[in-house]
Amino acid sequence: MIDKKGRALYVLTEKPSIIGWGAVVGKFEGEGPLGGGFDKIYNSDLIESGLTWEAAESHIHSEAIDIALKKSSLTKNDIDLCLSGDLLNQCVASAYSIRAKKMPYIGLYGACSTMALSLGLAAIAVESGCACNSLCATSSHFCSAERQFRFPLEYGGVRPPTAQRTVTGSGAMVLSKHSSKPYVNAVMIGKIEDYGITDANNMGAAMAPAAALTINEFLTQAKLSPMDFDMILTGDLGSVGSDLLKELLQSKYKLDISNVHRDCGIMIYDSEVQDVHAGGSGCGCSAVVLCSEILNSLMQGNISSVLFVGTGALMSTTMSQQGESIPGIAHAVWLKN
Amino acid sequence: MIDKKGRALYVLTEKPSIIGWGAVVGKFEGEGPLGGGFDKIYNSDLIESGLTWEAAESHIHSEAIDIALKKSSLTKNDIDLCLSGDLLNQCVASAYSIRAKKMPYIGLYGACSTMALSLGLAAIAVESGCACNSLCATSSHFCSAERQFRFPLEYGGVRPPTAQRTVTGSGAMVLSKHSSKPYVNAVMIGKIEDYGITDANNMGAAMAPAAALTINEFLTQAKLSPMDFDMILTGDLGSVGSDLLKELLQSKYKLDISNVHRDCGIMIYDSEVQDVHAGGSGCGCSAVVLCSEILNSLMQGNISSVLFVGTGALMSTTMSQQGESIPGIAHAVWLKN
Repeated sequence: MIDKKGRALYVLTEKPSIIGWGAVVGKFEGEGPLGGGFDKIYNSDLIESGLTWEAAESHIHSEAIDIALKKSSLTKNDIDLCLSGDLLNQCVASAYSIRAKKMPYIGLYGACSTMALSLGLAAIAVESGCACNSLCATSSHFCSAERQFRFPLEYGGVRPPTAQRTVTGSGAMVLSKHSSKPYVNAVMIGKIEDYGITDANNMGAAMAPAAALTINEFLTQAKLSPMDFDMILTGDLGSVGSDLLKELLQSKYKLDISNVHRDCGIMIYDSEVQDVHAGGSGCGCSAVVLCSEILNSLMQGNISSVLFVGTGALMSTTMSQQGESIPGIAHAVWLKN
Repeated sequence: MIDKKGRALYVLTEKPSIIGWGAVVGKFEGEGPLGGGFDKIYNSDLIESGLTWEAAESHIHSEAIDIALKKSSLTKNDIDLCLSGDLLNQCVASAYSIRAKKMPYIGLYGACSTMALSLGLAAIAVESGCACNSLCATSSHFCSAERQFRFPLEYGGVRPPTAQRTVTGSGAMVLSKHSSKPYVNAVMIGKIEDYGITDANNMGAAMAPAAALTINEFLTQAKLSPMDFDMILTGDLGSVGSDLLKELLQSKYKLDISNVHRDCGIMIYDSEVQDVHAGGSGCGCSAVVLCSEILNSLMQGNISSVLFVGTGALMSTTMSQQGESIPGIAHAVWLKN
């Protein structure tokens, strides 16, 4: 039964379990500090010879799903509902991956917040009886994202210090009414927040206000404080966005999360060794961090309560060229073991 | 309570009511046979002076929502969950419309099937207790779609007879646990079907197989025949796709729907007078036909049972240029009065 506390917070009483997960990444992500936790690491951006970057992204998307299914001891025929999306126009990495799998499919667009959005909805689907088994997945790819959102790679454009690197990777999870650990305890669907950021090379700043809004609303409606969590994990604010988030939470909402805050965009790369400016980003960033380090730690009992806040910049090159600012959104999923 | 018959059919026992709806269209749509039923008709493609085509689409998207809210005697603050999407890259017509409304927002991508997807999920949200009041909306715009998916309008490309015209329009609905008419009786989330169509000017052929699959699965799982409906209404197959659908249903599934079949893409324009080739298309097509003619007829009791099958071609220019075929999807919503 869904217990609705406040307008946007869904407390799940059936505790939908995450019974299997998979994370597939590229070479650069594999060389980062979380490399040991990923299920598969590819050595080439093209993943397999003969693929385009978009097809490569779709390929790892499909593989992450297959790994999550295998770990769940389920097949695609056992999945009642598949929720997925990605950064590419018309969400093609997802569509072409799921085409072959013949699962009832809900296409989502939440930019980099899509992992939290799809996970939250997959949990609600199990809780409400819409699905016995649901599946969520997202992906991103450095090369497919660069050519779509910024410049051709061959141009070699210099990226400013605020820029983040789009993660090449895909993560997928299978949820079920299973009473195993870890499980989803609550979900909050976020609202769009826009502080007028127009710099497409500063996604962190565009997303931080939405993250602050969702974190504050979640804690307020759930009557909890930051200290009630082992970790408040933001999607991919990177170093610039993370600093802004903490400042904003402090000044606007009188909330101090610095002791428990982590950010997937900071965790995935080694900023000392890997030249990634403000960190990682992309749908695949929080997806692969969640589907390795975080879920493994929850399962092993190293941590027991994580508020995952997926953040998305609903950026469009067309609207940026027309002078529009970048709307941000953040969805929250409370994971427990 | 959601009664799940078969794997993908959701029978809604609470009968979530559609308590308000709005349809806003452009000049050309206003001149069509359904013109008298729309809430607002604009005389210019730019809707209001100073807008870009994308901003114009976002503007009518926002207006359709406002009209649906007004007719429901609700404000944006009463909406617990807003589900929306459109054809533009990064679904910006929706995002920029909903940005100002501060509603919890789920971004969807289902191409032209988005009205059925968002309506179905909005109904399930009310049924499951996720929302007291939910809102769904979609839009499309002839000019913003042409320049994104095909050619610059100034180029004046000749369109082949199989091509459909993207509808300039937006439709929105508010759903609530209200026990008024019309209401949503059942929902089916579709699967991707791809018969290898590669012609971006033949969306009807790309979508027809998915429509056939969903109609057959719906009727089979619900143990119904076409004659149990006053109307089986496809989203926007147009004349080419509608013929293919009927042929496919007959040959592959032994189903004859010709007595009850209507198509939003055929209904919206007058093929004798308006030069639209195979008919209308776009997220806005089924949205504005549903939010005028169909819901009005259901409310007045002229018809009492409609199976609305929203169809989408998950087309991407990038994937088309790489030689990929166009995946189709269709979601079904059973409307009753």
